[in-house]
Amino acid sequence: MSDLVDIALGDKKADLVLRNANLVNVCSGEIYETDIAIAHGVIAGLGRYEGRVEIDAQDNYAVPGLIDGHTHIEMSMLSVREFAKAVVPRGTTAVVADPHEIANVLGIAGIRALFDDAKATALKVFCMAPSCVPPTDPSLGLETSGATIDQTEIKKLLLMDEFIGLAEVMNYEGVIAKEEEVWAKMAIAKALKMPIDGHAPLLSGKELNAYVVSGAGSDHENTSSAESQEKLRLGMRLMVREGSAAKNLKNIAPLLKSVDTRNCILVTDGDRTPLDLKDEGYLDYVLRRAIEEGIDPVKAVQMCTINPAQWFKLDAKIGCIAPGKIADIVLLKDLESFEVEKVLVNGKPDFASPSEYRYKYPQYRESVRLKRVKPADFVIVQEGTMKARIIGLIEGELQTGELVEEISGIEIGRDILEIGVLERHHHSGNIGLGFVKGFGLKTGAIASTIAHDAHNIVVIGTNEEDMALACNRLKAIGGGLVLCNGKEVTSELELPIAGLMSDKELDYVILKQKEMGDNISVMGCKLPAPFITMSFLALPVIPKLKITDKGLVDVTKQEIVGLFL
Amino acid sequence: MSDLVDIALGDKKADLVLRNANLVNVCSGEIYETDIAIAHGVIAGLGRYEGRVEIDAQDNYAVPGLIDGHTHIEMSMLSVREFAKAVVPRGTTAVVADPHEIANVLGIAGIRALFDDAKATALKVFCMAPSCVPPTDPSLGLETSGATIDQTEIKKLLLMDEFIGLAEVMNYEGVIAKEEEVWAKMAIAKALKMPIDGHAPLLSGKELNAYVVSGAGSDHENTSSAESQEKLRLGMRLMVREGSAAKNLKNIAPLLKSVDTRNCILVTDGDRTPLDLKDEGYLDYVLRRAIEEGIDPVKAVQMCTINPAQWFKLDAKIGCIAPGKIADIVLLKDLESFEVEKVLVNGKPDFASPSEYRYKYPQYRESVRLKRVKPADFVIVQEGTMKARIIGLIEGELQTGELVEEISGIEIGRDILEIGVLERHHHSGNIGLGFVKGFGLKTGAIASTIAHDAHNIVVIGTNEEDMALACNRLKAIGGGLVLCNGKEVTSELELPIAGLMSDKELDYVILKQKEMGDNISVMGCKLPAPFITMSFLALPVIPKLKITDKGLVDVTKQEIVGLFL
Repeated sequence: MSDLVDIALGDKKADLVLRNANLVNVCSGEIYETDIAIAHGVIAGLGRYEGRVEIDAQDNYAVPGLIDGHTHIEMSMLSVREFAKAVVPRGTTAVVADPHEIANVLGIAGIRALFDDAKATALKVFCMAPSCVPPTDPSLGLETSGATIDQTEIKKLLLMDEFIGLAEVMNYEGVIAKEEEVWAKMAIAKALKMPIDGHAPLLSGKELNAYVVSGAGSDHENTSSAESQEKLRLGMRLMVREGSAAKNLKNIAPLLKSVDTRNCILVTDGDRTPLDLKDEGYLDYVLRRAIEEGIDPVKAVQMCTINPAQWFKLDAKIGCIAPGKIADIVLLKDLESFEVEKVLVNGKPDFASPSEYRYKYPQYRESVRLKRVKPADFVIVQEGTMKARIIGLIEGELQTGELVEEISGIEIGRDILEIGVLERHHHSGNIGLGFVKGFGLKTGAIASTIAHDAHNIVVIGTNEEDMALACNRLKAIGGGLVLCNGKEVTSELELPIAGLMSDKELDYVILKQKEMGDNISVMGCKLPAPFITMSFLALPVIPKLKITDKGLVDVTKQEIVGLFL
Repeated sequence: MSDLVDIALGDKKADLVLRNANLVNVCSGEIYETDIAIAHGVIAGLGRYEGRVEIDAQDNYAVPGLIDGHTHIEMSMLSVREFAKAVVPRGTTAVVADPHEIANVLGIAGIRALFDDAKATALKVFCMAPSCVPPTDPSLGLETSGATIDQTEIKKLLLMDEFIGLAEVMNYEGVIAKEEEVWAKMAIAKALKMPIDGHAPLLSGKELNAYVVSGAGSDHENTSSAESQEKLRLGMRLMVREGSAAKNLKNIAPLLKSVDTRNCILVTDGDRTPLDLKDEGYLDYVLRRAIEEGIDPVKAVQMCTINPAQWFKLDAKIGCIAPGKIADIVLLKDLESFEVEKVLVNGKPDFASPSEYRYKYPQYRESVRLKRVKPADFVIVQEGTMKARIIGLIEGELQTGELVEEISGIEIGRDILEIGVLERHHHSGNIGLGFVKGFGLKTGAIASTIAHDAHNIVVIGTNEEDMALACNRLKAIGGGLVLCNGKEVTSELELPIAGLMSDKELDYVILKQKEMGDNISVMGCKLPAPFITMSFLALPVIPKLKITDKGLVDVTKQEIVGLFL
């Protein structure tokens, strides 16, 4: 600190000076030319400075490193190492991560592994304590999850240095019904004066008021300007998501152009496929899209820097380029297209290459705890045709319908396939079986250990042999995605880290994913994102009919229902 | 809380509903019509609500209670009770107070008394721990102050509930010179993640960078747009003051109209005379002036509500009208003129009248610890004419010049008067004597226990008899302001609370002050604010020549100097 003051005073040379940069000053909302002096990883001064190293930045804009205010790293299917390698060079230097995917599989140990790995990267990963693990009330017995994070564990997490708040309280119905457990979790965060993120799609009017008065302080589930405006007016932080699947910016941009945007934050919600991550970018993509939608570039940058920093109380350290802040700086060739020239992390343009880090997760390669299954385990016993409850896919939605039809079993001609969920955390041997309509597969089977949020195994098939083979293969490779056809594994992506994340490079994941996409298309499934669609069929919090290792779930009633009527 | 949720849901009636108010929403930056439902002192919901009591507010604007981000209550010369009675009905419901005046007299006990009294009022008083008590390094022995608040005591204060940060670090030269004591105080606030207010008039360039990198996060000493812009750009909170003496808005308004104002805050700095407080208002006056200067009314309101709330981390509770926030609300007949219809404190329009509170400060009535003085104590021994250092007043400035002239003693014809500072905290009997030019008194003497920052007694006179009488009278009335002429007390204002504050009502203080102003004018002094001018002649941190109980101080050299050369 003493040295920093000497450097600020000009009595000593800075470690590095960005000379004549066009600073995007998110505090004053201005762009102007200045030197940026850096020492000890921190910004020492703005003005005219000399450095031991100087970078001519007169053709560049300097913006603070972007902060993704809401993401789930696991959704990238990449290790934190690979994730950081992909996003940091694109200008995102910090993320606020809700590790609820790995938490559902491995509990606190999984979370800890995730942020321990994060420490070895150039990316600053701030954690939110997952509030809804598991997503359904365990006492209802609707499914078997890998882990439970109760109020005692929430408290433990929030007292750790890495944690800065309570992650999206998705159980908004529980909140306004004053459920004890979720209220207790929120009370802990409030007592610690930590931010509480919300999640309340389409919640409105008096119910939204009740949710806010209970303590939910933000929401990223906004699809229209009207919905967004209502939340912003109630004092919530408005998180606007633009992902591979959810595209919310176009609808919300008109609002963002007409209101005070200090409480608005651009986020990815983790919704970037590996391919999109590579081709289009990460939070830089969201920022670029916002500018395309006509939002003032400086305001758009604020929505990715100082705005999230203030909500998450990180603004003493990051979120703007000013004396005393950490020198996470992105130099751009062009502001509107966000073309990155160079990224500085902790003042270093040559931040330690994450590839030097040796990724180790020995215990997590054992996350698929499944007894070997046989085709017979998938046989649904029925006599002739029977009237069955069938999960009906609805194009472009995560919601499903409940169809009731006479069937004689798997009927490929009517696009009625078998779906199974196999418990994979506790060797219980639980298998829930049912039928799904609209998936389109004409042959073979597809299985995955990504199955929100309990992340058991979900499998869809045209025959029991391929279904069994796919599940057994998942166990052999430690989890991932598998396609089988004609009793052979035709393609696969290993995700050995908790069955959720690869230990390979981004390009490998992209290649494999493309290969699988091509394969499944040949097998008859024409859905735009079949694995993602399948992964949500096991989530018993989105209506109407879903399936877990316990069987079919009527989500609206929150109860297990029979397959046949 | 459970009840609040029921009310938000509309299942129960609110305690109070402000029906069809024109809400100034400082979060979204909009004005629109809505009901505001209030229960348990908190805002339960916005939208359409029913209440056990309803107020028709369709002709009113509803704005959050104003928050004065920087003030010194003692400067009003009013007790907290009277201060609150004056400011709350005018729309200021919270202040961030730096109690450094009373701290210099009575230390922590004085601060505690101040905020204990505050608790009995409708005003929310948040305290900043005074960082510069006394203002000069005690080891230099330049003056005797009533109390010292060192780093140990700062830590004690900051751990108290009432304290929210470190008050203006006026010793900016000490900060950038890395003085151990001031650095230690700042380090304590930083470790507690508390805001640190700065004070750095005209500090600029590299020195300002050094001040900011050391941790100073705000400044209220800004007189021009250029100075303000530089501070804002360095990430500081820009506090803009508009007081009775300091009028900074006109010069800074052009900047405020061209930049992002989220980090801009309107403040009084305590600079409102009792008369101005009554005639023009308090922070409402500053807000009105900002709007007069062309600042957008919603932005101006933000600068008095959400902006200070965010800087001081009070935004979880106050600063906007949204579910879950304390219901401190001002209903206005008109926004631009800020004409108050009604003020709600903790949701109550009939907040407990502070006049019911019995003001008790027994021990503080003894703050003038002075041995009886005689005219002989004021005799400056000299032989014939001698060359003396004389304090030269400079019109309209707190700075003084150092004049060196041949004098034969008090020379009323040349406007050379005697000035004395009498130690009044420890019965030491210290008296510092000297001469002052430019005060204008033709007869009598004037004395005061308000003498920044040590608040010893300062007296200026045309003869030793009246000087001694004035000082003895101050002791008799427990402190205050006294005018003597012809060996008689001609007018006085008792300030028995630490010698700084009255225990009477605002109107009484105004009346007395006016009377004294008329009197001193008749006695020859034509200065616009003679008591204030005199009170700063004892402050050895503003150049050039000042006087303390130890004698004349060369402020630039920070040393005691002789009266005669």
